[in-house]
Amino acid sequence: MSPESLKKLLVDVREGRINPDDALERLANLPYENLNYARIDHHRELRTGFPEVIMGVGKTPDQIEQIAARILARGSNLIVTRTDEEVFNRISEVNAATEYHREARMITALQDRTERGDGVIAVVSAGTSDIPVAEEAAVTATAMGNQVNRIYDVGVAGIHRLLDARDDLRSARVVVVVAGMEGALPSVVGGLVSAPVIAVPTSIGYGASFGGVAALLGMLNSCASNVTVVNIDNGFGAGFVASLINRKRR
Amino acid sequence: MSPESLKKLLVDVREGRINPDDALERLANLPYENLNYARIDHHRELRTGFPEVIMGVGKTPDQIEQIAARILARGSNLIVTRTDEEVFNRISEVNAATEYHREARMITALQDRTERGDGVIAVVSAGTSDIPVAEEAAVTATAMGNQVNRIYDVGVAGIHRLLDARDDLRSARVVVVVAGMEGALPSVVGGLVSAPVIAVPTSIGYGASFGGVAALLGMLNSCASNVTVVNIDNGFGAGFVASLINRKRR
Amino acid sequence: MSPESLKKLLVDVREGRINPDDALERLANLPYENLNYARIDHHRELRTGFPEVIMGVGKTPDQIEQIAARILARGSNLIVTRTDEEVFNRISEVNAATEYHREARMITALQDRTERGDGVIAVVSAGTSDIPVAEEAAVTATAMGNQVNRIYDVGVAGIHRLLDARDDLRSARVVVVVAGMEGALPSVVGGLVSAPVIAVPTSIGYGASFGGVAALLGMLNSCASNVTVVNIDNGFGAGFVASLINRKRR
Amino acid sequence: MSPESLKKLLVDVREGRINPDDALERLANLPYENLNYARIDHHRELRTGFPEVIMGVGKTPDQIEQIAARILARGSNLIVTRTDEEVFNRISEVNAATEYHREARMITALQDRTERGDGVIAVVSAGTSDIPVAEEAAVTATAMGNQVNRIYDVGVAGIHRLLDARDDLRSARVVVVVAGMEGALPSVVGGLVSAPVIAVPTSIGYGASFGGVAALLGMLNSCASNVTVVNIDNGFGAGFVASLINRKRR
Amino acid sequence: MSPESLKKLLVDVREGRINPDDALERLANLPYENLNYARIDHHRELRTGFPEVIMGVGKTPDQIEQIAARILARGSNLIVTRTDEEVFNRISEVNAATEYHREARMITALQDRTERGDGVIAVVSAGTSDIPVAEEAAVTATAMGNQVNRIYDVGVAGIHRLLDARDDLRSARVVVVVAGMEGALPSVVGGLVSAPVIAVPTSIGYGASFGGVAALLGMLNSCASNVTVVNIDNGFGAGFVASLINRKRR
Amino acid sequence: MSPESLKKLLVDVREGRINPDDALERLANLPYENLNYARIDHHRELRTGFPEVIMGVGKTPDQIEQIAARILARGSNLIVTRTDEEVFNRISEVNAATEYHREARMITALQDRTERGDGVIAVVSAGTSDIPVAEEAAVTATAMGNQVNRIYDVGVAGIHRLLDARDDLRSARVVVVVAGMEGALPSVVGGLVSAPVIAVPTSIGYGASFGGVAALLGMLNSCASNVTVVNIDNGFGAGFVASLINRKRR
Amino acid sequence: MSPESLKKLLVDVREGRINPDDALERLANLPYENLNYARIDHHRELRTGFPEVIMGVGKTPDQIEQIAARILARGSNLIVTRTDEEVFNRISEVNAATEYHREARMITALQDRTERGDGVIAVVSAGTSDIPVAEEAAVTATAMGNQVNRIYDVGVAGIHRLLDARDDLRSARVVVVVAGMEGALPSVVGGLVSAPVIAVPTSIGYGASFGGVAALLGMLNSCASNVTVVNIDNGFGAGFVASLINRKRR
Amino acid sequence: MSPESLKKLLVDVREGRINPDDALERLANLPYENLNYARIDHHRELRTGFPEVIMGVGKTPDQIEQIAARILARGSNLIVTRTDEEVFNRISEVNAATEYHREARMITALQDRTERGDGVIAVVSAGTSDIPVAEEAAVTATAMGNQVNRIYDVGVAGIHRLLDARDDLRSARVVVVVAGMEGALPSVVGGLVSAPVIAVPTSIGYGASFGGVAALLGMLNSCASNVTVVNIDNGFGAGFVASLINRKRR
Repeated sequence: MSPESLKKLLVDVREGRINPDDALERLANLPYENLNYARIDHHRELRTGFPEVIMGVGKTPDQIEQIAARILARGSNLIVTRTDEEVFNRISEVNAATEYHREARMITALQDRTERGDGVIAVVSAGTSDIPVAEEAAVTATAMGNQVNRIYDVGVAGIHRLLDARDDLRSARVVVVVAGMEGALPSVVGGLVSAPVIAVPTSIGYGASFGGVAALLGMLNSCASNVTVVNIDNGFGAGFVASLINRKRR
Repeated sequence: MSPESLKKLLVDVREGRINPDDALERLANLPYENLNYARIDHHRELRTGFPEVIMGVGKTPDQIEQIAARILARGSNLIVTRTDEEVFNRISEVNAATEYHREARMITALQDRTERGDGVIAVVSAGTSDIPVAEEAAVTATAMGNQVNRIYDVGVAGIHRLLDARDDLRSARVVVVVAGMEGALPSVVGGLVSAPVIAVPTSIGYGASFGGVAALLGMLNSCASNVTVVNIDNGFGAGFVASLINRKRR
Repeated sequence: MSPESLKKLLVDVREGRINPDDALERLANLPYENLNYARIDHHRELRTGFPEVIMGVGKTPDQIEQIAARILARGSNLIVTRTDEEVFNRISEVNAATEYHREARMITALQDRTERGDGVIAVVSAGTSDIPVAEEAAVTATAMGNQVNRIYDVGVAGIHRLLDARDDLRSARVVVVVAGMEGALPSVVGGLVSAPVIAVPTSIGYGASFGGVAALLGMLNSCASNVTVVNIDNGFGAGFVASLINRKRR
Repeated sequence: MSPESLKKLLVDVREGRINPDDALERLANLPYENLNYARIDHHRELRTGFPEVIMGVGKTPDQIEQIAARILARGSNLIVTRTDEEVFNRISEVNAATEYHREARMITALQDRTERGDGVIAVVSAGTSDIPVAEEAAVTATAMGNQVNRIYDVGVAGIHRLLDARDDLRSARVVVVVAGMEGALPSVVGGLVSAPVIAVPTSIGYGASFGGVAALLGMLNSCASNVTVVNIDNGFGAGFVASLINRKRR
Repeated sequence: MSPESLKKLLVDVREGRINPDDALERLANLPYENLNYARIDHHRELRTGFPEVIMGVGKTPDQIEQIAARILARGSNLIVTRTDEEVFNRISEVNAATEYHREARMITALQDRTERGDGVIAVVSAGTSDIPVAEEAAVTATAMGNQVNRIYDVGVAGIHRLLDARDDLRSARVVVVVAGMEGALPSVVGGLVSAPVIAVPTSIGYGASFGGVAALLGMLNSCASNVTVVNIDNGFGAGFVASLINRKRR
Repeated sequence: MSPESLKKLLVDVREGRINPDDALERLANLPYENLNYARIDHHRELRTGFPEVIMGVGKTPDQIEQIAARILARGSNLIVTRTDEEVFNRISEVNAATEYHREARMITALQDRTERGDGVIAVVSAGTSDIPVAEEAAVTATAMGNQVNRIYDVGVAGIHRLLDARDDLRSARVVVVVAGMEGALPSVVGGLVSAPVIAVPTSIGYGASFGGVAALLGMLNSCASNVTVVNIDNGFGAGFVASLINRKRR
Repeated sequence: MSPESLKKLLVDVREGRINPDDALERLANLPYENLNYARIDHHRELRTGFPEVIMGVGKTPDQIEQIAARILARGSNLIVTRTDEEVFNRISEVNAATEYHREARMITALQDRTERGDGVIAVVSAGTSDIPVAEEAAVTATAMGNQVNRIYDVGVAGIHRLLDARDDLRSARVVVVVAGMEGALPSVVGGLVSAPVIAVPTSIGYGASFGGVAALLGMLNSCASNVTVVNIDNGFGAGFVASLINRKRR
Repeated sequence: MSPESLKKLLVDVREGRINPDDALERLANLPYENLNYARIDHHRELRTGFPEVIMGVGKTPDQIEQIAARILARGSNLIVTRTDEEVFNRISEVNAATEYHREARMITALQDRTERGDGVIAVVSAGTSDIPVAEEAAVTATAMGNQVNRIYDVGVAGIHRLLDARDDLRSARVVVVVAGMEGALPSVVGGLVSAPVIAVPTSIGYGASFGGVAALLGMLNSCASNVTVVNIDNGFGAGFVASLINRKRR
């Protein structure tokens, strides 16, 4: 509730257009639906620029389906992460535009396809095994109205493969870099570009990779100053923030 | 070395304006100065939008002074982090514009004061003890040509203090959030704004804060999707990335 | 064995009502049953205010059934945690009042339904996925004779959902707050209420949540002074302590 | 700001006693003082039952003195933790009732000595070296209007010392247990009493005690159901929560 | 090869009873059998007082069977740990005296039943779930020729159950204490007895027990001076060392 | 691209044999094939002495088969690690020389059997359970053209077994030592030989072995100066580096 | 209080020799002195075979002096660990037999020099830097009435130095092995002897030794079955348990 | 003692040239000097190719001086690591060739300057602050008779600085790479060269670098197959192994 609308409400009260009890209720009448097990936040779209995204893990298919139905009913775009084909089949019956992205393990249903991004978002992966996480970032950014340029399998041990992609990297407005094992790629990319780099550690590796901790620490200690980091395997978060950075300015 | 200049070099070779040996040398003649203990990267400014910043820790005062002198000699802006008054005194003899920022423990000497930012960068701190790190972010962003709005001591255990600053937060193009202890502030701020949030964990706390690890983990696991994270106490990095995000677009 | 009963025993010995050997045996005759693999502590009810609770994990169905039968035979209330439907079916044949709580994965059989609590215990969850642990707390508190108010899915990234529940929170005598991921909710709740807050970290999350460690550390480092913490996923413990705090005073 | 006062404000607006702009300002005029580096929360006393406590670490003596002066000026009780004699000397010039508690490293200035507790709070320490943390709990509880019973050096390796104190333990309404090394004492005490036990791990120990982590983990995994835990060395927090639990009921 | 036998070998060489080449070979001809994937150490019995024990995990049933057959063929006692019924069935065909201990998951075949222990070894468990590890210790000690006294489910949260067993504890020459969760039991037992206590942490617990780490750290930091520790779940090692300590002296 | 070939390219441009645009393209035309999900680095053989090795984990059978086919088509040797029999069956249809190494879980197809090593590489394992990792090292070294001497099950608790192998150890040019649990073997071997020792921790163990971390730390802290370490279970890496060290010199 | 004395007390009550109130008090009158900050346990000597040992760290010189005086006044032997020369000077004025052991940083005052050990206790150190901890074990064992054989600087990287000491090792009844860095020595010693081995990790090392954690983990994972472990740098504990094991049997 | 000399000894015994008792003593008379606190291993030079190196930390100046004197007296080369100028002054009085290397904090005294290396050892550092550790490697390698090529401050965030050094890197027979922070440099170097790469993590960094752990993990998880790792800050070990690899072959 913005200051303007609060001011307007107060004026309405003074003018007698609204009585105090109604005003009180309106202040309390918050813009979310309570399903008991979940409170869907329909105002998030106004507040943060994108509707609530459904994180699939830890929710039953029933719960996901019901939340999705309500989001779709409002004409918003739908994004479900960390989900599977069974859930997709349910939702695709509700909305024909629903797509399943196998590698990314995501469902999207885009009812509003406005182009919201200014430039290109580059999504870079160090190895073949990092691609599912990279796809989560790429699909998210696409669903949020951005152009995405995928540059995969350009790990630092074969540096010429990366240098070869220098032009693509330099022309991006934001770069998402996805890497497991030692997580060195964001530092090298960070030194090559002037755009912000969002580093995503993946759980790819074994032994002392500790499920992505080695990559995470590598990225947090990056000697490139333009690198920020998200959680291990959080391709969605990287794609989301990249979209915010790339948003058209008024 | 861009494709255009490479093309031009090759054309010059064909036209006989440059002979192959000279071309070879030019390709090898890289744009940095080698002081033996340090290779100053003068082209970084072209490549990444800002000259090399000197991280003071681990360098002798002599080394810092020499590197600083060379950066200043090229007319670039100077930023030294994690330094002290002794080093400041040395450099201020070289350049009269040099300033010392006591809380941030930084030196800046700004020879180019172009406004580079589009909007405002908000720098938020959870507690009084987090202010030195917040100042590192704020001084960095200012030195890189941005307007900065400081909002300090608005930790989550007194949520009304934060809500009170909602308008300032919402009008920022990027928000840097600095917090120690449980590191919860970025999640709450992240839910209030639609801009990207850069979270900086600090080493403030005791016992199970483990020198900032608790705050770091809290931020990496933020339930707000618009949060990315930098290293513990890395105010500089947060200010740097915030500046890149806020940069004016052509 | 209280000082009073010891005094009485000694008087009985002096009066010759009990001879020393019998007294010695009585002192040794401790109030538990030894099933070899388990020693059921029937005096715990007198000593700590509630009969022994059966933690289901690590015990065979046979063992649980036998221990349960003995507790029920004494007319005490029965609580089994971390169990399943198979065990429920066995016990429900012994006692018709037995209930299975699916989300909480608990069995209760209440033979004594005395109201023991003074006020209301609020049980709050950050997300939908945290509900099973919250239910463990809520079912425990109910079984121990308390009124419980459930407030679910009010995570800090949508702070207005929580603020909306402020009145319910403020009227509770104790608040149990269940949260995974960054575990920030107890700090915010702690700042809103004057009651003690019992924080329960959950293992919900991925990557750097480390199975609940991030949430646990967040809660231990809470900047709100009224927060104490129990083990990861220990909804039972939180419900138990909340019941002790809420107990009617003589 | 309570619903009642909001209602009253709205009625005042309708009645024309307050115009909308003033109402708007009043809603924004939050009950804290902004010293720039700190926002003192004077309404906390109403909201949480006790004025803001000053955590000394990480603040300059000047800052502590100024914050203290403002709290004292409002007639509230003052508690400063983790501080030293120098700060005490400054504050004792402002207020004659100021006391310094050397072992606890705390300053208190009690302007309101109302008895607020119902029963007795027992503060128990495992070893001699744990006493400073135990004193922090005891001084806090005393300053908050409670009767405190200190039971020190009753570690589990000499169990008869603890059993000897059984009556004192059983007559307490809350028990704070402070222990370093293996942190086993809360589990044993928890089994002896029916009151809630607040366990405080200390950093006492060496080698694999990891600065209190061993004790912390021991307490989180306590097999006694009535134990909750606070941060390592957080005697203040334990004393604070114990005071809330022991508060007289209306 | 002892100094005496070396001396004898050298004398034999001088006397011409053995020629240098044969002596060389004999020195090299070490007392183990090389199965390529395993070198069975038949002299261990002489050297360390007990034949090589087969750790079942990480070996194929074939490998275990072959190693067992060779040990049995020499008339030695056989102990296999961390194994299963399938392996038992194979070995019991080779040797009729073979027994399977289900809870301990061990196989023993005792061809030599000499009593080797002097006193009694007490094996104590904190909870019902710790019994499998306690049984591993008890079966090992029995197989090595000792009398064992099992005292199970005497965790510290019901201290009277433990105190009740005081006489049994005090009459033991060594006490093995097995506990998960907070691992406090060895400290309490250590304070009650004058014998050495061997503490075995178990992986029983959840959340912050970290698979036994909490118990392990608790035991390493025990405030009782007579406690030493073995690896998590290493009941075998505890039973083995207890047997060495209890060995009859010449 | 070496300086010589760059020089030659530039000369060709000057002589008009190549026009600038073609030269530009040639500089960009890098020596790898892009399969989209993988960029096969065919020049690695020239650059690092051995063709790209396929790490099987995290790739689909289809992906492995396609990458393998391309490597084989160039006449290079093929090594696939961490794979299984299903993949072997596919590749063996493409190339008859394909072998499956069951214990090592590797596939090799050697089209070039040049002897590249100078001396012998010893591969030593501490226990029977460490053999799969040791085999990964041994198969790798063999495939890279070396003679390998396997010395298995010579753990430090039976030191005479190791001393017995002293001559074999001393005649090796490099020693790979594979050990789990406490990882002590490399230190002892390191003291016996003058060659470099490559230590490979394995995940063999339980409890406080933490999946190989105990062995890894033991090796990193080796008091023998000639020991370097690779990742947990990284037999391949050890065999690879041993091959580089043993390479014939020109 | 033994069953016999309890029986006698009860008989005395019956016979009228003691009235119930006095008996009650006597039961409560426990055999320790309460100095408020410490409860000195004078019965420990009867109960555990040795008087209470004073751990110097965390106690003030005053406290140590007072506790020491009381122990000496009862004619018991005195051991103070982790102390310094200042404390020694104070105590030596009280008792002339007081000695200061500089390397071990211990004070002993032996008023009873009975030989209590049966055999010899070997104390072995891996390196020169481990000697202070080894001395703590050796001084403790000597003070408790044992013969001690010191074998220092026999680390595993020079295995012949250790093998040379084989006879001394084999003739010991208990072996204490002190090692930092990789902590491998106990495993090798464990394989050479049939006696129990008590392993003491030290904090000697750097980097990934993590203050002794690497050595601790190495020892807990020892492949020798006769090894138990105490806390990092806990020479005292090792010497204490070794003394218990070596005690003469009745 | 080699098989040959053992054979010879046995022959001498048979021939009567040596009697069995003398032979026994000779077998026992091991080639080290026992200073009680240290056993200097004079045969190490024969056994491992270089005399014992003195690690300065944890030894008193007296101890270092005495051990050094004995090593020098035998005409061997002396290397002391982690030492200081005070120790240097003492030793330089004993031997005029003694040098102090300030950055590396090492002392060397080279009495034998034979060139032992075949090719060049490159020592590479990522940053200016890593130079002390790099110097430890370089000084060690030089003292062991190798040519060293130092390439400093070529961190991955300015990749062109590294690529510029490609020729130097490719002509080295071994490359030592020293890096703190994210430790990414060895992976990039590893992809550029065909020689073995020895990676040295340094403790340079802050926050989540955890004293070098981030760099260590990065290196252990390197995606370049030719990388092995030594302990944090262990420049000496890296220089030592590099020397072994580079040794001239017979």
